[in-house]
Amino acid sequence: MKDIDIESYLLDQGKLIDELMVSLVPSEDTHPRIIHEAMRYSLFSRSKKIRPVLALATAEALDCDKETIAPFACALEMIHTHSLIHDDLPSMDDDDYRRGKLSSHKIYGEGLAILAGNALLVLAFETVSRAGGDPKRKLAALNCLCRAIGTKYGLLGGQVMDLSLEGKSFTKEDLDYIHSSKTGALIETSVVGAAILSGAGEDETRRFGNYGKKVGLAFQITDDILDVTGSAEKLGKTTGKDEISRKATYPSLFGLEASRKKAGELVDEAVSELEWLGERGLVLAELAKFISTRRF
Amino acid sequence: MKDIDIESYLLDQGKLIDELMVSLVPSEDTHPRIIHEAMRYSLFSRSKKIRPVLALATAEALDCDKETIAPFACALEMIHTHSLIHDDLPSMDDDDYRRGKLSSHKIYGEGLAILAGNALLVLAFETVSRAGGDPKRKLAALNCLCRAIGTKYGLLGGQVMDLSLEGKSFTKEDLDYIHSSKTGALIETSVVGAAILSGAGEDETRRFGNYGKKVGLAFQITDDILDVTGSAEKLGKTTGKDEISRKATYPSLFGLEASRKKAGELVDEAVSELEWLGERGLVLAELAKFISTRRF
Repeated sequence: MKDIDIESYLLDQGKLIDELMVSLVPSEDTHPRIIHEAMRYSLFSRSKKIRPVLALATAEALDCDKETIAPFACALEMIHTHSLIHDDLPSMDDDDYRRGKLSSHKIYGEGLAILAGNALLVLAFETVSRAGGDPKRKLAALNCLCRAIGTKYGLLGGQVMDLSLEGKSFTKEDLDYIHSSKTGALIETSVVGAAILSGAGEDETRRFGNYGKKVGLAFQITDDILDVTGSAEKLGKTTGKDEISRKATYPSLFGLEASRKKAGELVDEAVSELEWLGERGLVLAELAKFISTRRF
Repeated sequence: MKDIDIESYLLDQGKLIDELMVSLVPSEDTHPRIIHEAMRYSLFSRSKKIRPVLALATAEALDCDKETIAPFACALEMIHTHSLIHDDLPSMDDDDYRRGKLSSHKIYGEGLAILAGNALLVLAFETVSRAGGDPKRKLAALNCLCRAIGTKYGLLGGQVMDLSLEGKSFTKEDLDYIHSSKTGALIETSVVGAAILSGAGEDETRRFGNYGKKVGLAFQITDDILDVTGSAEKLGKTTGKDEISRKATYPSLFGLEASRKKAGELVDEAVSELEWLGERGLVLAELAKFISTRRF
């Protein structure tokens, strides 16, 4: 079995994504300059690029060439960045720091930060709709993306609940909904969309979906743990905020130890979903482990 | 030649669009309820539905059935409503009234209004990507939509310039850019996207594009005129705001009379672009005339 240095892998694949995104976002000289500067400010910053790397690793596991997946992978990072810019707005989480620097609205003002978020969302769709590849698969992947961002099971539904429940009491069901919609759905779609674009069959896609669901939840639990135990410097954002705003989190409901255990179990289950891939599933297994044990 | 009552036509087609949109937006009982209520609040309000009706009339002119176009037509109205919700935000135009009622952020607060705008944008893409019809044509129509909303030539570019120039001096070039990007691009895409989905050839699509470009500009000039001369009650929004905020408009640069003349000329040119359609172009010609002579 190969030995994988997963942090180097993340770094290498992340560089590949950055290179492509540089060519996808209009340059800072393009009129109107300020919006392209704002898009680039948030997009090209400290990011682990978990979502695009999961998509690339899925394509790799299915022997699909990276060129087919790369535009979709970039779209995932654009959508994620869109959500961070909007999450940080004064009318949402009101956060001054993100990815180790001032958040978008602190630099560009609220109006432009809202528009920069919108612009990244639209560029994500434009990137996928314009890319080469099988039209039917692309439409299916686009539809997956829309559901992952949508109000019923996706990002927007999670943001709404997050906003509605802040400072209020919450149940385990509320917490599960927020986790699965706000973080889980886009992580799951990173894997499922990539599987669809790689030409995976229905049963294979379902298994990738199960892996993605579990990895997504493990990711969010780890995020919540890091908000309690992590250093603001390493994370590049304000920590301890969940506690202050009485946010629904795993540690606040179950404690740190039980939360760590739960994340570990989810990763084991995720890895077992991809056993049928043999050696080809190794990178995805290592990514799952990294996601639940990371310190940043 | 048939005699067309264009206001009845707009009303009838608008009803058809409303009926379909009712089934496309999750019901107010769907979790999380508040966001679906907010989406419906803005979407189902006094709207002429110029964009979807232009799309339906284009399909009609090309003998394409309405079922093929209707999802795309609904997407146009969703995108337009998205832009109005965000335009009205305190950090943008800061407007309390829209379509004859309180604007979204006045009812739901800023955070939720931002999310409702986002949700309508994503639902628009979901609606087109999920609809039936030729996959290649759908991807081309989606790509058109993205460019019409994007930062380079579309809605977002116009919003950025609008925001950047408020209270500052502006040139004829700035004004042309704002008009063509903020309003023109989506109106042009209503016609071009519908032509593509209807299977029009390249040359035909180009002519529809010319018609759409001219109608879009005539629409915006008329909008600017109505901001000076119209009644807030009929328009359902605050009037005289352009003057107060020293916004770049046609009347402020050229006066009312020259602006009216320009709108009339554009409509004549638009109509002549579609002469080759014969009787089939009649509705689009009447729509162009309505757009430049409307009082609301």
